[in-house]
Amino acid sequence: MKLAVLGAGAVGASVVELAGEYGHDVVAVTDSRSAAVDDGGLDTGAVLSRKRNDGSVGGADPEAAFETDYNVLVEATPTTLGDAEPGFSHVRRALSDDRHVVLANKGPIAERYDEIRALEADSGGTVLFEATVGGAIPILSTIADLNGQVTAARGVLNGTANFILSRMAAEGLDYEHVLAEAQDLGVAEADPAFDVEGTDAALKCVILANVLYEDTYSLSDAEVEGIDDLPGSALELSAEDGRTIRLVGEVSDGEVRVGPRLVPENGTLAVSGTLNIAQLETTHAGRLNISGRGAGGPETASAVLADIGRLPSE
Amino acid sequence: MKLAVLGAGAVGASVVELAGEYGHDVVAVTDSRSAAVDDGGLDTGAVLSRKRNDGSVGGADPEAAFETDYNVLVEATPTTLGDAEPGFSHVRRALSDDRHVVLANKGPIAERYDEIRALEADSGGTVLFEATVGGAIPILSTIADLNGQVTAARGVLNGTANFILSRMAAEGLDYEHVLAEAQDLGVAEADPAFDVEGTDAALKCVILANVLYEDTYSLSDAEVEGIDDLPGSALELSAEDGRTIRLVGEVSDGEVRVGPRLVPENGTLAVSGTLNIAQLETTHAGRLNISGRGAGGPETASAVLADIGRLPSE
Repeated sequence: MKLAVLGAGAVGASVVELAGEYGHDVVAVTDSRSAAVDDGGLDTGAVLSRKRNDGSVGGADPEAAFETDYNVLVEATPTTLGDAEPGFSHVRRALSDDRHVVLANKGPIAERYDEIRALEADSGGTVLFEATVGGAIPILSTIADLNGQVTAARGVLNGTANFILSRMAAEGLDYEHVLAEAQDLGVAEADPAFDVEGTDAALKCVILANVLYEDTYSLSDAEVEGIDDLPGSALELSAEDGRTIRLVGEVSDGEVRVGPRLVPENGTLAVSGTLNIAQLETTHAGRLNISGRGAGGPETASAVLADIGRLPSE
Repeated sequence: MKLAVLGAGAVGASVVELAGEYGHDVVAVTDSRSAAVDDGGLDTGAVLSRKRNDGSVGGADPEAAFETDYNVLVEATPTTLGDAEPGFSHVRRALSDDRHVVLANKGPIAERYDEIRALEADSGGTVLFEATVGGAIPILSTIADLNGQVTAARGVLNGTANFILSRMAAEGLDYEHVLAEAQDLGVAEADPAFDVEGTDAALKCVILANVLYEDTYSLSDAEVEGIDDLPGSALELSAEDGRTIRLVGEVSDGEVRVGPRLVPENGTLAVSGTLNIAQLETTHAGRLNISGRGAGGPETASAVLADIGRLPSE
């Protein structure tokens, strides 16, 4: 496949780096201000090195990516809420040109799912978005594969919040202390609101709800509580009872809820550090648990590349 | 799809019972001595009720199943070792007639993989066998989906052995006591050798090796040790050290090994009761863990039916 990769952050750069190993050519890479394009296939090492050294991927206008003869648009620009722009327009343009779209950007799928599906129905292209939920963990493809048998999903889907809760419980430290440590380690952003207030986990659950219920959920349909008000004493009290606290997202009975929940200390949901886990309830196969790395450049890129492998070949 | 289901044990009967819910017709069901056949689609309730009441599924010869206009042969007869007959001949016959084959029977895939692949290459039919490893857990489809990125696999893949080890550790009882309890509960067979000596787990690991390494492994290539000689004191000693014992199968570096292994008491591999877990090591996505119900009629049937959903449609 010929890939046009929009976004040269951790995920986009990893897709560019690994594409060749999966047998694909990269014909365009963009960042917010520039692009590198070559219908014959870019020298990806040179593009990534230029990005590292000069801060831009190339000398062309980002617009030029859409003029290449790409087969698959990889949307890896930052997630935005509300109108989910400019991601949404990127997806619309690729679909109207009958190209496939693989997203790592959660915005368009969480906020404008019905429009994306309508555009896809009128297009020769297919839209896939495994990387938007649980990083490397094949959650959406497992749901698709089980063919309507998954009735509900539950999970720990934000590594930053989970790291903070794991450390608070293990060290008896309070939230502010551990957040500072997580920021030092690069596990939490300078502005951690998106992760610790539950927004990121909620977007992932909204995407799960859209897939499970074939309906149109958006962030405003989710009941969301974060971990930023959680006192260290809550973790101490739960430990006395053999339990701990995790930021759990749930999609069941048509509802989407995210919040701190008591879970058994050694139970399946109590994954530690930055790991993620999803639990899928099925009609005939009981509960399936899938856990692994929920974030990271190469990990999330591997989900993007798995999606590319699932696209219909002409 | 029109299904011919060979074998009317727990798995075969569940496939017959659930087929309609997945949109399929059952045109043949066999047990070891008889068959029910109808190209127009059998009354599956009547067939299963006859099997329960009379001990046979119908009045026809088992051979009659192959004369129906089935699209998919479901091979759910008991697993046999060595020549893997009669399962192997069933698969060969269906493939030579250009029909698809979905197996729950481990024998042909573990013992005669190269022959099955050669027959498939000459056939219009496709062979799938998710149900042979880990019951309801989508292990093989996840490996296929990750497209060559899985380098090794490890897991707890026999529920009977795991139930016995879990109970030995929890109650401080010895092997003979817990085995008798497991037999009373129907978790262990009257002749438990296949499970407790590690043969069943080894067959599953051999199948994983065949898939991972695209090579031809059989049971004789596996290094196998069971749990039947394990003293209760070994579990007590391991518990003092925060660990427990699980029957772990490993496929790595071209080797297949099954045996009792020390694992952290609250670690990922220490699933309890009859649960199964598989750990997949990947090139770029770290380790994936998938756990769920590794056995049971409806659970294993759901894996068979998921395979049927994955077959190429004309």
